[in-house]
Amino acid sequence: MADEVVLLDFWPSMFGMRVRIALAEKGIKYEYKDEDLRNKSPLLLEMNPIHKKIPVLIHNGKPVCESLIIVQYIDEVWKDRCPLLPIDPYQRAHSRFWADFVDNKVIEVLRKIWTTKGEEKEAGKKEFFEIFKILERELGDKPYFGGETFGFVDLSLIPYYSWFYAIETLGEFDIKAECPKIVPWAKRCLQKETVAKTLPDQKKVYEYVEQMRKRFGNG
Amino acid sequence: MADEVVLLDFWPSMFGMRVRIALAEKGIKYEYKDEDLRNKSPLLLEMNPIHKKIPVLIHNGKPVCESLIIVQYIDEVWKDRCPLLPIDPYQRAHSRFWADFVDNKVIEVLRKIWTTKGEEKEAGKKEFFEIFKILERELGDKPYFGGETFGFVDLSLIPYYSWFYAIETLGEFDIKAECPKIVPWAKRCLQKETVAKTLPDQKKVYEYVEQMRKRFGNG
Repeated sequence: MADEVVLLDFWPSMFGMRVRIALAEKGIKYEYKDEDLRNKSPLLLEMNPIHKKIPVLIHNGKPVCESLIIVQYIDEVWKDRCPLLPIDPYQRAHSRFWADFVDNKVIEVLRKIWTTKGEEKEAGKKEFFEIFKILERELGDKPYFGGETFGFVDLSLIPYYSWFYAIETLGEFDIKAECPKIVPWAKRCLQKETVAKTLPDQKKVYEYVEQMRKRFGNG
Repeated sequence: MADEVVLLDFWPSMFGMRVRIALAEKGIKYEYKDEDLRNKSPLLLEMNPIHKKIPVLIHNGKPVCESLIIVQYIDEVWKDRCPLLPIDPYQRAHSRFWADFVDNKVIEVLRKIWTTKGEEKEAGKKEFFEIFKILERELGDKPYFGGETFGFVDLSLIPYYSWFYAIETLGEFDIKAECPKIVPWAKRCLQKETVAKTLPDQKKVYEYVEQMRKRFGNG
């Protein structure tokens, strides 16, 4: 039986982009379904009844939820090509640690920057730079977080790059000035077709964020 | 070279207990070091400079952090015995999903119950039962979350059982009355020597929690 792969997603989602990059890296054909998050499809509610969130990968009718879990699933099912996680258990744990760091820290601090004002916002910006400086130290002089090749941590973090213009414009700061290694790393990732074709244009993401802010009265 | 395994931990930690159970399941000998969290050891700060948290597994001098990542590492290194995660990729993703659910939901709601009063505390209790009812539905009629055998999700959740007396006493509610399947599941897990020998006595945990509450002025 040919694999039937469906992805329930939403185009500006950093979490969805991770899955799209993983599928592209593995060369898997799939049906993409963009969800309207204000009016979620019955399929999304049926496939992820617990969290009711995208992305959901539906593989031969069976759902897998949560972006990093989906990426690991893809890596385990299509293990014959383009490994996303290293083979060595220690390196795997190391990759999981940093992907988890991205998951726990970056979204949280973006929320802080975007939903607060004054001192709290300034504290958020400071925290943002601290987080990215920690990530830069982990990157070190390697071309990718995965070392010589693009891997699990790169894939977890790179979707945020498509949000950088929105983050910088709304946060009124310059990421490159404070974190000189991150943008060159992102541009290196973008040389990969799998990444370049997945990431939406930064300006398009900014327009989306602006629309959301206007709708929720933060604009 | 014989494996040198050291665990930096703190006895009432649910996260540490997960690692202790995994090590016991695999029959791995290790040196246990109980940390004083108010005065963390230089070794802990060196081995987990990012989060500065227990548990940390030090395997032949190299640290692995974050409880679920450590458990997966243990399962991958000592893969010849007592598998903790299933072999099938879909079942693995399913186990990771539910362990992640425990991680994201249970601690959060306990914080809510313990640090709030009045209506907020009542909302926290309601949420606690909702979370455990979802877990009960997932358990269904299986003896374990892992099916016929004790697995990754069981190991992730069972440490909370040692906190049940403290949760019930301080929250003034009866878990068994609302969630009739969870306590029998926990008792089933406790029939395993690896679990029974790891989990501290519920009253001892309660005494610890009371001490903490007095110290921080919530008593």
